[in-house]
Amino acid sequence: MGPGDDCAVLPPCREELCVTTDAVVEGVHFSRPAFSLEDVGHKALAVNLSDLAAMGARPLWFTCAVAAPALSLAEARGLARGMGRLAAAHGCALVGGNFTRARELSVCITAAGAAPPGGALLRGGARAGDLLYVSGTLGEARKALDELAAGGRLPRGDRQRRPVPRVALGLLARRFATAGMDVSDGFAQDLGHLCRASAVAAEVEVGLLPRREAGLEAALSGGEDYELLLAVPPGRAAAFERACVRAGEQVSCVGHFSAGRGVRLRQGGRLLRARRGHDHFVDHRRGLPQTPAPRAST
Amino acid sequence: MGPGDDCAVLPPCREELCVTTDAVVEGVHFSRPAFSLEDVGHKALAVNLSDLAAMGARPLWFTCAVAAPALSLAEARGLARGMGRLAAAHGCALVGGNFTRARELSVCITAAGAAPPGGALLRGGARAGDLLYVSGTLGEARKALDELAAGGRLPRGDRQRRPVPRVALGLLARRFATAGMDVSDGFAQDLGHLCRASAVAAEVEVGLLPRREAGLEAALSGGEDYELLLAVPPGRAAAFERACVRAGEQVSCVGHFSAGRGVRLRQGGRLLRARRGHDHFVDHRRGLPQTPAPRAST
Repeated sequence: MGPGDDCAVLPPCREELCVTTDAVVEGVHFSRPAFSLEDVGHKALAVNLSDLAAMGARPLWFTCAVAAPALSLAEARGLARGMGRLAAAHGCALVGGNFTRARELSVCITAAGAAPPGGALLRGGARAGDLLYVSGTLGEARKALDELAAGGRLPRGDRQRRPVPRVALGLLARRFATAGMDVSDGFAQDLGHLCRASAVAAEVEVGLLPRREAGLEAALSGGEDYELLLAVPPGRAAAFERACVRAGEQVSCVGHFSAGRGVRLRQGGRLLRARRGHDHFVDHRRGLPQTPAPRAST
Repeated sequence: MGPGDDCAVLPPCREELCVTTDAVVEGVHFSRPAFSLEDVGHKALAVNLSDLAAMGARPLWFTCAVAAPALSLAEARGLARGMGRLAAAHGCALVGGNFTRARELSVCITAAGAAPPGGALLRGGARAGDLLYVSGTLGEARKALDELAAGGRLPRGDRQRRPVPRVALGLLARRFATAGMDVSDGFAQDLGHLCRASAVAAEVEVGLLPRREAGLEAALSGGEDYELLLAVPPGRAAAFERACVRAGEQVSCVGHFSAGRGVRLRQGGRLLRARRGHDHFVDHRRGLPQTPAPRAST
């Protein structure tokens, strides 16, 4: 039983339930008019599906709470369209929601996925000797943000407005990896979290970081990549890479885990300092095309 | 596995899962300094537990997404304390969360509870002839709001800042009632929703509405009561009332359901017009002590 009652009623589930919650807020995670409402809907769900992907969980359902100044019907439809297309692509059902007035637009989603008992991919499982893989490419969401700030226009489907949750890769990786997490706050910072949770160190060759046109700084600490970090034992690495090729999933081996603490970044063998990632209370968007002041509610 | 990973991981559940999401937003559901952060935390969880109560579901877990301008440690602790006390009282575990910067404070909670397969109390089950019960008292949250607007001070534990979710009553009522829902947008409006979902009409004697010092208008359409509306077949009414007395739950029979559509309010037999309830885009708080303008983030 979906939306319309006081609660959604969902059938009993034999698997473990992986649950995450994440909000996108105007002026922090998106700005208007650079983002259409369709972009906002897509991004709000994508960042949650990325957390499910990081656990190797199969998306099941989500709830969506929207807070907004008066929203036109066309805007509400755009929001639903962006969210709905991504949800349909992942077989994830909207089961409930809430709508409230607020001075700024925000979309808070809680998403749930299923993993076999004991099968979820945690941050804490990496062991010294495991290889470190990262999916896709890094730094593009940050590069797009910089382009917006400089007054540029983004191409359709850019990674800032249309992040791609690596759900299929997460499901595949669960068979090979000892640990996983997604990169939301920047590669270096999030890798640090994984190391702390696993009580290991990481050695990274930054020359191996997968990037297209983004600079090294953006790749290391840009944030909002929504790629996966995966720890894979060397004995399973070849089979993992073959499975990725067969599934059309791009992964790059960029280093390994070792005994100790912290993240050591090397460039051609030379040690670099670790960089900071995204801080939710520092405004990285200074200079962004500003969101107009919220209108009075009607 | 609770907070700290990309997702919480929850054990398989043999019962049906009832899931709800609800946000409280500064300037809409609370104002400062009339509300302490402890009040905000309590209210944010209470409105969600009330939805679980309306389904007759046993609270299991919740996630909490906070959006806020810079929050002091004392404020964050207050928020956690208000939420934590209520959660502990209902055996409901915080399993995950999110924190993001925003211009105004809002707390978005998703809560889940368990009900036996087929056992959740829906809005659509009321039948003509069923008696209409309402729990507790109506109109006090609105009365408290009016007192705040007039510059008054509220007593400790008032129903505006400290709504009481009727969780135990919902669990009890599941054994007797054919339908249930909670009163969040006003008695008359929410009863209308229940009637539509059940395709029945309701006949209410307003003189029977349980209220303490609140006026009739506040009881009919004040909103934020978080009491339960319950439809109980006449043949089970006596047993239901006895069970409520034993459990110390106050309920009042205020009318019955009949064939037809809509809500008919009578006062000593004379027909009154139905009243409007809460509209999320109309500012009922005009005249409330205003929330200070959001501070710049630091």
